[in-house]
Amino acid sequence: MRVNAYAAPAAGQPLALTTIERRDVGPNDVLIEIEYAGICHSDIHTVNGDWGPQPFPVVPGHEIVGIVTEAGSAVTRHRVGDRVGVGCMVNSCGECANCQAGDEQYCVKGMVPTYAGTDRDGTTTQGGYSTHVVVDADYVLSVPESLDAAAAAPLLCAGITTYSPLKHWNAGPGKKVAVVGFGGLGHVGVKIAHALGAEVTVLSQSLRKKDDGLRLGADHYHATSDPKTFEDLKGTFDLILNTVSAPLDFAAFLSLLRTDGAMVNVGLPEEPVQIVLQSLFGNRRSVSSSSIGGIPETQEMLDFCAAHGLGAEIELIGASEINDAYERVLSSDVRYRFVIDTATI
Amino acid sequence: MRVNAYAAPAAGQPLALTTIERRDVGPNDVLIEIEYAGICHSDIHTVNGDWGPQPFPVVPGHEIVGIVTEAGSAVTRHRVGDRVGVGCMVNSCGECANCQAGDEQYCVKGMVPTYAGTDRDGTTTQGGYSTHVVVDADYVLSVPESLDAAAAAPLLCAGITTYSPLKHWNAGPGKKVAVVGFGGLGHVGVKIAHALGAEVTVLSQSLRKKDDGLRLGADHYHATSDPKTFEDLKGTFDLILNTVSAPLDFAAFLSLLRTDGAMVNVGLPEEPVQIVLQSLFGNRRSVSSSSIGGIPETQEMLDFCAAHGLGAEIELIGASEINDAYERVLSSDVRYRFVIDTATI
Repeated sequence: MRVNAYAAPAAGQPLALTTIERRDVGPNDVLIEIEYAGICHSDIHTVNGDWGPQPFPVVPGHEIVGIVTEAGSAVTRHRVGDRVGVGCMVNSCGECANCQAGDEQYCVKGMVPTYAGTDRDGTTTQGGYSTHVVVDADYVLSVPESLDAAAAAPLLCAGITTYSPLKHWNAGPGKKVAVVGFGGLGHVGVKIAHALGAEVTVLSQSLRKKDDGLRLGADHYHATSDPKTFEDLKGTFDLILNTVSAPLDFAAFLSLLRTDGAMVNVGLPEEPVQIVLQSLFGNRRSVSSSSIGGIPETQEMLDFCAAHGLGAEIELIGASEINDAYERVLSSDVRYRFVIDTATI
Repeated sequence: MRVNAYAAPAAGQPLALTTIERRDVGPNDVLIEIEYAGICHSDIHTVNGDWGPQPFPVVPGHEIVGIVTEAGSAVTRHRVGDRVGVGCMVNSCGECANCQAGDEQYCVKGMVPTYAGTDRDGTTTQGGYSTHVVVDADYVLSVPESLDAAAAAPLLCAGITTYSPLKHWNAGPGKKVAVVGFGGLGHVGVKIAHALGAEVTVLSQSLRKKDDGLRLGADHYHATSDPKTFEDLKGTFDLILNTVSAPLDFAAFLSLLRTDGAMVNVGLPEEPVQIVLQSLFGNRRSVSSSSIGGIPETQEMLDFCAAHGLGAEIELIGASEINDAYERVLSSDVRYRFVIDTATI
């Protein structure tokens, strides 16, 4: 079937309305009528060509919420009429140890990204800035009824990207967690870390969004532009979740970790970072990174967010505003995630 | 009391025989007649001034084995005649959470190093290249009878430096551990990792010491000068224990880790290392470091080595050979640790 979509025709070109082909619904597929698609910074990097050549035209979008309108004969997991979500991956080998363990994001053969990827049938994947998508039902999540559908869309990327490391590194009662950056990822990370029971500190460049931070779950909010922050908070945190992709002074941030503390980076600068191993040595600190989460954990995250009444803070836009929204994301002028009402495509 | 010692009079100067003052034996102290002192690469860095200004004259040596010849009135842990050991620290605050947890090496006020440090009474510590030393009994280890005393000396630094991270990162049956570098630290790390039940691979620049490696406990031995090593071993290891302080191609070594694998550095280059966070992202890999071990864990390590009949491979030398030995360490011409027979001082 041919469906409407917004695509970048080439690197750095504005997105424009076009039509794309969606595959027939196979025995294990579902057809989803998309309601909402979040705009992730990754979308912008990809279509701008920051991350290398892409199979243009590219339809971005890996924060997808919609309704199942058709289900393949073998599908038992989702039914027509169900509200469902699709995140950053739509397939994986299913057979390696990581896939078997439910960590499909770390598939040793490489997971299939939701757009600009090569699916297992050799076709190029196209994302959620579209009216419909066909996805293998095993990579489709159930979106609980109690979640606001539009606010749930960003959870499929920003939610699981922060939930997974917070869980893996044991954020919870008695733990001090710093979230670096208070944007699309950071604000969701703060909400989740707070709901997990951790004591949450935001480390942001300025105090500009302090009121929001405290309202959304942070216990403390400090400006990293103030050197006093680094003096006062030395040796404080069990976990620093860094959502900023701009290069940071890693030695300064690492000094904020207590013994056995971890700095986990989900914002990734394109250049190598300089790390002085001595800043890890005296406290057995570690530097790590984390990529979204597996399908079971993504479902767990959605259920957790539903149980705690969590969603992203969003600005709902029409499809014609996508290019303007990209500009605003690049100038950090969004509180805190744009979501496209895909009925307007 | 004044005792004989070998000291570096100034940065980069050869060590020479001198006398130094040891403090009176306090209620919680023991006086140790030193039998053996290992030569650690750190000794050479320190006296060469590689690590900044030092309180010269400096008597190095933090791999000390000897016999208790006097014990303070409050000492219950050691008795006159006991064979004991002293490692890299001789004091700490004793009160912080890390000290209370037996992780005195991570004392938040800073542990007191065995030489060139400032003890809690304000005096400068002097190390084991000497006939006697006075140490707080709480920082003195028991050396099991079954250990060869000379071969046990390097365990006080090289042994615990490798044992602690191997234990912390769960080296054991079913785990694949790579040890990078097969020198003073590496050869002990291989023995301990093997005794812990892990499958052990040595990654050394060349195959020059392969026979020793396999004999001492490695299951596999690969040359890092051969690019095929990095192709063949991609995604293999749960833990890479890096004992090399020369800068490495971190991206290449990180590619050898499997999902959730850790690269733990106990060899520390002086310059910052370049780490591409993307090489951690796709597998939740981590980079960390580890500093010796606490007193309880050091005792555990000595008991473990005694139970498994482990010691360092050593060349026993007289005190007059120290400066030559330093030259040989710098040219990697030692198999695998020099130990000074301190009766010759």
